[in-house]
Amino acid sequence: MMKARQIEKQLLVPYQHRVYFTQDVFEPENTLLASLLTESTEGEATRVYVAVDEQLREHDSAFQDKVHAYFNNFREKIDCCGYSEYPGGEILKNDLRYLKDLYHEIEQAKLCRHSYLIGIGGGALLDMTGFAAATAHRGIRHLRLPTTSLSQGDGGVGVKNGVNYLGKKNFIGTFMPPHAVVNDLNFLKTLSNNQMRDGYIEAVKVALIRDGAFFDLIESRAELLINRDPDTISWIIEKSAQHHVDHIAQSGDPFELKSARPLDFGHWVAHKLETMSAFKISHGEAVAIGMAVDVLYSQKIGHLAKKQASRIINLIEQLGFKTYSPELLTVSEQGRNLILEGLDEFREHLGGQLTISLLNDIGDSFETHEMIPKVILECIEGLRDRNASRPHPES
Amino acid sequence: MMKARQIEKQLLVPYQHRVYFTQDVFEPENTLLASLLTESTEGEATRVYVAVDEQLREHDSAFQDKVHAYFNNFREKIDCCGYSEYPGGEILKNDLRYLKDLYHEIEQAKLCRHSYLIGIGGGALLDMTGFAAATAHRGIRHLRLPTTSLSQGDGGVGVKNGVNYLGKKNFIGTFMPPHAVVNDLNFLKTLSNNQMRDGYIEAVKVALIRDGAFFDLIESRAELLINRDPDTISWIIEKSAQHHVDHIAQSGDPFELKSARPLDFGHWVAHKLETMSAFKISHGEAVAIGMAVDVLYSQKIGHLAKKQASRIINLIEQLGFKTYSPELLTVSEQGRNLILEGLDEFREHLGGQLTISLLNDIGDSFETHEMIPKVILECIEGLRDRNASRPHPES
Repeated sequence: MMKARQIEKQLLVPYQHRVYFTQDVFEPENTLLASLLTESTEGEATRVYVAVDEQLREHDSAFQDKVHAYFNNFREKIDCCGYSEYPGGEILKNDLRYLKDLYHEIEQAKLCRHSYLIGIGGGALLDMTGFAAATAHRGIRHLRLPTTSLSQGDGGVGVKNGVNYLGKKNFIGTFMPPHAVVNDLNFLKTLSNNQMRDGYIEAVKVALIRDGAFFDLIESRAELLINRDPDTISWIIEKSAQHHVDHIAQSGDPFELKSARPLDFGHWVAHKLETMSAFKISHGEAVAIGMAVDVLYSQKIGHLAKKQASRIINLIEQLGFKTYSPELLTVSEQGRNLILEGLDEFREHLGGQLTISLLNDIGDSFETHEMIPKVILECIEGLRDRNASRPHPES
Repeated sequence: MMKARQIEKQLLVPYQHRVYFTQDVFEPENTLLASLLTESTEGEATRVYVAVDEQLREHDSAFQDKVHAYFNNFREKIDCCGYSEYPGGEILKNDLRYLKDLYHEIEQAKLCRHSYLIGIGGGALLDMTGFAAATAHRGIRHLRLPTTSLSQGDGGVGVKNGVNYLGKKNFIGTFMPPHAVVNDLNFLKTLSNNQMRDGYIEAVKVALIRDGAFFDLIESRAELLINRDPDTISWIIEKSAQHHVDHIAQSGDPFELKSARPLDFGHWVAHKLETMSAFKISHGEAVAIGMAVDVLYSQKIGHLAKKQASRIINLIEQLGFKTYSPELLTVSEQGRNLILEGLDEFREHLGGQLTISLLNDIGDSFETHEMIPKVILECIEGLRDRNASRPHPES
């Protein structure tokens, strides 16, 4: 055998990850979006295509006119060459027809690598349009305008995109930072109370893992959040987004090429619950239950003080979430608890070695590579008994 | 309007880009591949899936057995959980059925982000399997084993992948460095003379842009290349690959997020010629003609000395390529030369501003943002007249 010769170079790929907070992004005097779209324009007008959640029209029948009027103000520099509506939610990622439609629109609108695809909607719309943008022409610039509390504080400010395939969530996707994220707090006014609280629970999650003081403040401001106080909402979303961006930037492995994990807590149960319920349990509802399981687990194995565990469970409930669902005790035909099977699937998803975040304290997490099935079941049963003896929340 | 608040972080994503040169990669005593696949294995055996150009079986009916036997030697650390064959060439990128098949295989074989998808074949196979690997689970590790001179010295050592869609070459794709590239020179023995020379022409291209001394050596070794001298082939491939990797690593913008351009010369004509001929003109043949056009153009506008232009055209011809094809003078129904229309398409592809590499000298290129149609046509006519008066090459 000839000795192998080798060329080796490090490629450092620099991305700017930017999240802006504003209001009334399409009001003519708000120049934020226009300046983001034209910061590197030379010569011809920048081509911009807008893909929108169709629900926006239900809340504001003039939304499309407003968008066109906005870009028309900047028509010498911005050419808004297309606008289309898509359904929100998981259907958009499940049915690849929508992705194909969007590729077709991109081709027809003659977008290139210096053009912009703006996605306006919740997590699913941003995931689907983000994947189209990341892959068409090997990457069109993507601008995200998240419209839900969940996407403004959590998924929308991350660097992932994707669609579902072969029955698996996010089977196809990429890591690709958007050109910028623009969080317009006014979009949140269109949300139902249940949609709104989905964002709160992810803020609780990030507080539990990273920032005990943030948890204390959420706890003290829970009533304000429930009453949808605008300043408190603005604060919790911005703080949550900040933690997400910090986590991605500080990990040294933002694309999870090695073993970096996202800001996960309670998510292994949540993923399984969502799938088992065919997404009838929302992501926020599933995360609330999943966190409750892992909080009790952290307590039972002697890491988290009982008092702190109670504070967390109480806050989750105070924000309007259940901490138990009958799916937690569903058993397969082989007699195996399905949530425990979810643990095996999660291990497989991670490539053989399990990594789960648990809590030493509020704001202080650690990672474990092993969870004891019997203890998990005890936690689930504890939550069942707690919820049986407690008045049903309104939801 | 509320003043926009902003979170901004730079994400630096580090990739190691590695190209190895070896022979007999699947001989049991060659441990290169096995060590690349197990360098980060912890615990369970690494899952490996192999996607192969079906032509390899035509040259070596025992190829699949050899691959399985190789991995079987390392079965405690490597689990070769699948092997499938695909046709080579553009059909593989045109018909998305193959991509869907591969996604299905990846799902069935339970590959995860720590598993490996090995692609063994020419540029089209590496592009398609690379795209599947880049997007399944948001990124499975991809190992490339290029089998053609073109892919070993040029495309296969780059960071792009993709498939064709909506009639457009590489409409869907990503930038993603492979885990490693392993160039096994023995694969080149299976190539026809015409396939072999396609790699030489890309080496000439890179020499013209970056390295005059490399051009001089190719010129002096042209006979050895035509006679397929193994050491000379090994030298030209390695040197060409080195230039490609250097260009990607030194650009500061390896994913062409801003305005970085690949190592392009003569490629704007080549892309159009390939498409016009429905890929009957091979990439190498098209590049040879495209370079001849841009060499004459560089001379006509007073940048490249006539003597140097002649040396280049002579070397292209000596390596067995034509420098003219009747497609160069095809006219549309509107009476417009199609190659000139290709220039407009290329401008559009680049986002409105044209950037074309031309030559000051051999090894010394510059960029222009404007080409004069009349002069392009004069160059084409010059090549037509030269080829009319010259004996046909063997091809």
